[in-house]
Amino acid sequence: MKQADERESAVPVTEFRPGEQARTRDDVLAVEEPMEIRVAFGAREARQARSLSITMRTPGNDFELAAGFLFTEGILQASSQVESIEFCGPAAPGRSTSNIVRVELAPGVELDLGSLERHFYTTSSCGICGKASLDAVQVKGLTTLPAGTPRFSRDMLHALPVKLRAEQPVFDRTGGLHAAGLATPDGALHEIREDVGRHNAVDKLIGRRFLDGKTPLSDVAMVVSGRASFEILQKALVAGIPLIVAVGAPSSLAVEMAERFGMTLAGFASQQRLNVYCGVDRIV
Amino acid sequence: MKQADERESAVPVTEFRPGEQARTRDDVLAVEEPMEIRVAFGAREARQARSLSITMRTPGNDFELAAGFLFTEGILQASSQVESIEFCGPAAPGRSTSNIVRVELAPGVELDLGSLERHFYTTSSCGICGKASLDAVQVKGLTTLPAGTPRFSRDMLHALPVKLRAEQPVFDRTGGLHAAGLATPDGALHEIREDVGRHNAVDKLIGRRFLDGKTPLSDVAMVVSGRASFEILQKALVAGIPLIVAVGAPSSLAVEMAERFGMTLAGFASQQRLNVYCGVDRIV
Repeated sequence: MKQADERESAVPVTEFRPGEQARTRDDVLAVEEPMEIRVAFGAREARQARSLSITMRTPGNDFELAAGFLFTEGILQASSQVESIEFCGPAAPGRSTSNIVRVELAPGVELDLGSLERHFYTTSSCGICGKASLDAVQVKGLTTLPAGTPRFSRDMLHALPVKLRAEQPVFDRTGGLHAAGLATPDGALHEIREDVGRHNAVDKLIGRRFLDGKTPLSDVAMVVSGRASFEILQKALVAGIPLIVAVGAPSSLAVEMAERFGMTLAGFASQQRLNVYCGVDRIV
Repeated sequence: MKQADERESAVPVTEFRPGEQARTRDDVLAVEEPMEIRVAFGAREARQARSLSITMRTPGNDFELAAGFLFTEGILQASSQVESIEFCGPAAPGRSTSNIVRVELAPGVELDLGSLERHFYTTSSCGICGKASLDAVQVKGLTTLPAGTPRFSRDMLHALPVKLRAEQPVFDRTGGLHAAGLATPDGALHEIREDVGRHNAVDKLIGRRFLDGKTPLSDVAMVVSGRASFEILQKALVAGIPLIVAVGAPSSLAVEMAERFGMTLAGFASQQRLNVYCGVDRIV
């Protein structure tokens, strides 16, 4: 959806509060879209261009993001090494600019490709707009989850964040870990994993079931202690998890992904509140 | 430091509370260490091994993490494709195991290296233990920051999180963004950037100053809305920022990095509290 401010996106949400009727209203989410950083370098007569990074980001200050990345990752040392920065290619769907930023280095500035090889990366979100990222998930052969079942009660979902928190022994002492857990419709939280990396907690959780030959996880809900991003939803979809409950906010692309693949996504989960962004038919 | 539970690490901290004397006590932090995932595959007579990912993680459930990563990133589809998982090489400094996990695939299971090339990555944290990650930063040519100056007042630091929050217009509406800001010793918050990615907010912030030719940023403090990880500290060091204030918890490796390079690191910052993990001489 095109917005005046491309950093945020309005989506409809069904809000549950204990003892009240569900109500539908508009909610505003932070936009998450991939951005590719390309660098052109070398002598005038032998220019090379190279894609150095694809990062999931919120649009805005994109040239600063590209420059800051190149500087803080040790690739550039002075602004004089930069000749120009521009968007490359046509505007991405629903956006006013491309999601590809090309940094033209001053003539003669070289890059040490060998060390880049070792240190750099993109994310698993291929494609240079949110839609392409979703399309890439389909290319992988992942299909829409079957609608409707299993069903989870509102009360059970409201209670999950407290149960997750109660099972976080290391967080209690350190305040520094993300957690993810798997719960069945009866409300039991079967296992949790903690990690400094939000995606690692999810991988540890799903990895156990995978090693036990117990995937797809089509009868459980996954609760995560933080925010719900595209990456978390993608991992859940691969594992066949139909319902994701986040204690924090979802991103715009997480909601689009859940919608496209028939998943249920709830955010801002607590005993007082539960915002359901799609797939509300799995909640009774 | 070797701990009974390798997920946490005890460090000394100086705790400030308004109107009270500073006191020193032990604090417990979540451990952050790199882990490399290697995969061996192919026919018995023509085995290949390949490093697929280096991720910063909290030790524990490492085999699950490796398996979960390979599954949720679409590389493996069934546990029968895995023959064995083991640690590779000697124990990392201060740990009971290596930080390299080798996943042996069943004979005949092949990997599509072309698609891996496109989608995978490591983090900028090279080296396979925390110490090697810190050493790699030194190899990059970054040196210890000059001690002592500038100095920041306790009152000014206690106030930074509220000022940052007040300047987060998109977070107010979405609840979904990390923020980073730069402040001078007089307490002024000069600019902030927001992003769904914590490292992107920092890159945008530093990128502006870099493009303006205003680095190193040796006279400012950086405040971040979330936790302080190795990656955030590394970016700050490259930019020459002497003091980092995190609203959330620091990781063990963030504190080690700050100590080694003469930076000041404060966490759990609020009007009521400020935990300083090192470099307390910059605070008056």
